[in-house]
Amino acid sequence: MFDGPVTSELDPAERRARLKLARSARIGPVTFHEALQHFGSARAAGALATTTDAAVVQEEQALAKAGGRFLVIGDAAYPPALAALPDAPPVLSAIGDLGLLARPILAVVGAREASAAGCRLAGELARALGAAGFVVASGLARGIDAAAHQAALASGTVAVLAGGIDQIYPPQNAGLQAAVAANGLLLSESAWGTPPVARAFPRRNRIVSGLSMGVVVIEAAARSGSLITAQRAAEQGREVFVVPGSPVDPRYAGSNSLIRDGAILTRDANDILSVLNQPRSDCQPLGKPSQNPPGPEAAKVLSALGSVPTAVDELVRRCQVSAAAVAEVLLALELEGRLERHRGNRVSLM
Amino acid sequence: MFDGPVTSELDPAERRARLKLARSARIGPVTFHEALQHFGSARAAGALATTTDAAVVQEEQALAKAGGRFLVIGDAAYPPALAALPDAPPVLSAIGDLGLLARPILAVVGAREASAAGCRLAGELARALGAAGFVVASGLARGIDAAAHQAALASGTVAVLAGGIDQIYPPQNAGLQAAVAANGLLLSESAWGTPPVARAFPRRNRIVSGLSMGVVVIEAAARSGSLITAQRAAEQGREVFVVPGSPVDPRYAGSNSLIRDGAILTRDANDILSVLNQPRSDCQPLGKPSQNPPGPEAAKVLSALGSVPTAVDELVRRCQVSAAAVAEVLLALELEGRLERHRGNRVSLM
Repeated sequence: MFDGPVTSELDPAERRARLKLARSARIGPVTFHEALQHFGSARAAGALATTTDAAVVQEEQALAKAGGRFLVIGDAAYPPALAALPDAPPVLSAIGDLGLLARPILAVVGAREASAAGCRLAGELARALGAAGFVVASGLARGIDAAAHQAALASGTVAVLAGGIDQIYPPQNAGLQAAVAANGLLLSESAWGTPPVARAFPRRNRIVSGLSMGVVVIEAAARSGSLITAQRAAEQGREVFVVPGSPVDPRYAGSNSLIRDGAILTRDANDILSVLNQPRSDCQPLGKPSQNPPGPEAAKVLSALGSVPTAVDELVRRCQVSAAAVAEVLLALELEGRLERHRGNRVSLM
Repeated sequence: MFDGPVTSELDPAERRARLKLARSARIGPVTFHEALQHFGSARAAGALATTTDAAVVQEEQALAKAGGRFLVIGDAAYPPALAALPDAPPVLSAIGDLGLLARPILAVVGAREASAAGCRLAGELARALGAAGFVVASGLARGIDAAAHQAALASGTVAVLAGGIDQIYPPQNAGLQAAVAANGLLLSESAWGTPPVARAFPRRNRIVSGLSMGVVVIEAAARSGSLITAQRAAEQGREVFVVPGSPVDPRYAGSNSLIRDGAILTRDANDILSVLNQPRSDCQPLGKPSQNPPGPEAAKVLSALGSVPTAVDELVRRCQVSAAAVAEVLLALELEGRLERHRGNRVSLM
């Protein structure tokens, strides 16, 4: 189900240039963003593109025929939490209900070779999170992922594929993949027709966590993909919720090490909701503003801000000023009524 | 096995008076310590005693006949970690190897109705902790306790009984109780001949944790005795190590809630040893001393210190001065070479 046109804030020529750059040889997400920053726009970086307008139009048409569309970074419909990542996918193919991306999302991930108890728990958690208003994101793998998507079909679920959005994988989840396209949302960073090769799976996992406020991990073995997803989620500043298990069960070796390293032990949905419903420290009253006059740092921060929500971490990195200085500038802007704060410690100018 | 006479620092008359006070009606441990503090000695508090010299001598003789002896608080052999508790048992009956009390002790506790996997894990942990030089303390209950004692018989184990030290309980552990008396150490706060009534078990548990640097919890259900022992251990400033389990297994409901509340997730003995081998923050260099002259607070703290190790918490409570002030006085004493720091955040004068 494609829910109709979404207005793009991007100039059509720039949007086309971004698509071409994203689909060019040797241009990964980080290189893409560096090129945009260096040249100022994808149009200006056009010389780097190794693909043609025709190829991009052809892919867009194939996607449209399947009821889908591209989400190019800068599009209004592009998920803002994902846009804040330094390796945000330049382009996502999407089939389904884009409205889900405007709702709070939680990832539920875990072992493909999961126990029956683990799959049941994944279903129960996904149902309870759905009832609490959360969209459930996962990777459409066998086991935990499939159980979570299945249980969240009615309330809202997003599946991020490793291969192209036309690729049915894994075969035993073909029916579930069709159901998510019809009732939820399929997303893929890979180009149309790309087979789901091994190296695409960890890249896919950063999108699952990047879309989400937090990641719930069920049955992650040592050195498992779910363990990597959880570590990546923590690096992205997402909450990591982990269901524990017996130390004698190797399916929980990764899970237990995550909890020991500080992830939140999770027994049921209440253990998740109680954490997420706590007021975030960055939304609490910030007290009296400092009386210092704005300096050159304030100008830097101000110039880096725009109407698109930006992660505060990203501002610190981009402006090369201290986190404390950025916080002070943001506070001053907020007190002047010029700053809007968003979930995920992101900010934009009003 | 009784390992011979141990010198007592207590005046024999005071020691007898403490025994009489401890065995008197309506004198619990807290009242005992209050009476000692108020009257200055048990001899001065003699009017409170409701028992006779003859009764105390008779109990001591029965105990000696069984190869045991009393440990009166103030005796050199009385376990120092336990002595630091505000509700330290005034008297313990002991049968076995008192030398175990001079070694580092860890408690291993858990469910009576434990799983086979839980009992196996308790045995493995106890064996590994024994090999690492720790004495294993527990409560001689069925299940986890029994598995831990059994595995630590060769390396050193202390069993704390709820009833009198002559009471064989539970009956299925009669052989183990005899083996601990012969190869390890039996302790009891209850008077000779006292049956193991229900209310004695939580009191017994505070001794298990109080003897120990830390408590390892295996399979604690919700509202279980092991859960209470762990909470009590945390209040006593002991480390709490907890083996996790599946949230769908009610035998781990208490365990998982302990980890969520900050206990250390524990998969094997290394998870315990790595924590205990970290330098404690109170043993790290404390930086430059303050230049403030000593005040009346220093005098108070100094007068509360002696050659017997005392918990810093206890000093704060007893001296009615702030923890920061106590820390400052202790630092000054330490820099003068007059203070010795002990495990468990305890200090004594050199």
